[in-house]
Amino acid sequence: MYTKKDIEQLDRISRLKIINAVTGIKPANLIGSINSDGLSNLAIFSSVVHLGSNPALLGFISRPQTPEVGHTLRNIKENGSYTINHIHPNFVKNAHYTSAKFSAEESEFELCGLTQEYQKDILAPFVKQSTFKMGMQFVETLDIKHNGTVMVIGEIQKLIIDNSAMVDDDIDLQASNSVGISGLNSYYELKKIAQFPYARIEELPEF
Amino acid sequence: MYTKKDIEQLDRISRLKIINAVTGIKPANLIGSINSDGLSNLAIFSSVVHLGSNPALLGFISRPQTPEVGHTLRNIKENGSYTINHIHPNFVKNAHYTSAKFSAEESEFELCGLTQEYQKDILAPFVKQSTFKMGMQFVETLDIKHNGTVMVIGEIQKLIIDNSAMVDDDIDLQASNSVGISGLNSYYELKKIAQFPYARIEELPEF
Repeated sequence: MYTKKDIEQLDRISRLKIINAVTGIKPANLIGSINSDGLSNLAIFSSVVHLGSNPALLGFISRPQTPEVGHTLRNIKENGSYTINHIHPNFVKNAHYTSAKFSAEESEFELCGLTQEYQKDILAPFVKQSTFKMGMQFVETLDIKHNGTVMVIGEIQKLIIDNSAMVDDDIDLQASNSVGISGLNSYYELKKIAQFPYARIEELPEF
Repeated sequence: MYTKKDIEQLDRISRLKIINAVTGIKPANLIGSINSDGLSNLAIFSSVVHLGSNPALLGFISRPQTPEVGHTLRNIKENGSYTINHIHPNFVKNAHYTSAKFSAEESEFELCGLTQEYQKDILAPFVKQSTFKMGMQFVETLDIKHNGTVMVIGEIQKLIIDNSAMVDDDIDLQASNSVGISGLNSYYELKKIAQFPYARIEELPEF
């Protein structure tokens, strides 16, 4: 057991490792973007979250920007376009190393061995190796004043999924071979264990 | 492939099922709360997200409130206390059925076969069956104007984890037997496949 005080007194690295893992499994996505000079950027994010289905809105958390980090949000603000690409087991290592602090002039695509792919009507680059990806249009940012982070909100413009990801008319994340992240650097495969109907009071099982 | 227009033209249920699954795997948590009359509430959430480690802040998304739904946020606003409890395979079915529309007078703990547990200094009830849980203090809400949802932000007051969840000084979500959710009703077990060091440019592997 850790109290608030115990957490505050942990050394920085231990605290980062623990607190980044407490929410449970996180989705593993690469976000692609491009600046006005045509320089592409690719960064791993574990904070993509569903906000609504109509309109189809997703959010992600961007940390406080400095000259060295935050190229993704800077690019998104320049032209409104970005892509969200699921990570699969065969390129988790490539994806992980996009988190190194490359300069704005360096493209993580090239340095991490991933391939840019462009799609009609979407300015930002997709990850060719991903079989589950979305073209996004920026909507707004929300400031989280307590720690300077920002929630970036966007709407899905294009959803590209392999037919094999659909099982019985439902997206199956084991079939799509999508991975999860824990903490800052651990990657997990998914194994489907249960599916239940929409929960109605009149159909409540005996517990 | 689905364009924005294709997504808009899907029937409501198909759209909910698909768009709730596109972010990838989501953490499976039960949020416990209690109102000023001492009536407890328990609800499943797949939107818990890490916002920062110092202070240790977590967020989750609450849908627009109506008299029938939103008891969790109402309770949190009354007294500032809530708990976040990981879901394990042996009670995924119980956890799923907390999403049925019970009235404010009914406690999901009792009706879904889960046990309340109280801890010193935390007003809201924990889930006894969970071996990975947190007592939270409400900080603020952020309105997402585009669809009326709200991000609820809180700080960790107490983190209770089983020793078996710690492997080599790191939280291991396979060892803690934490599960993930896809869409509205599919549950996944986790299998750790890789762990990499903090990514430094000077230690970039050959890709």
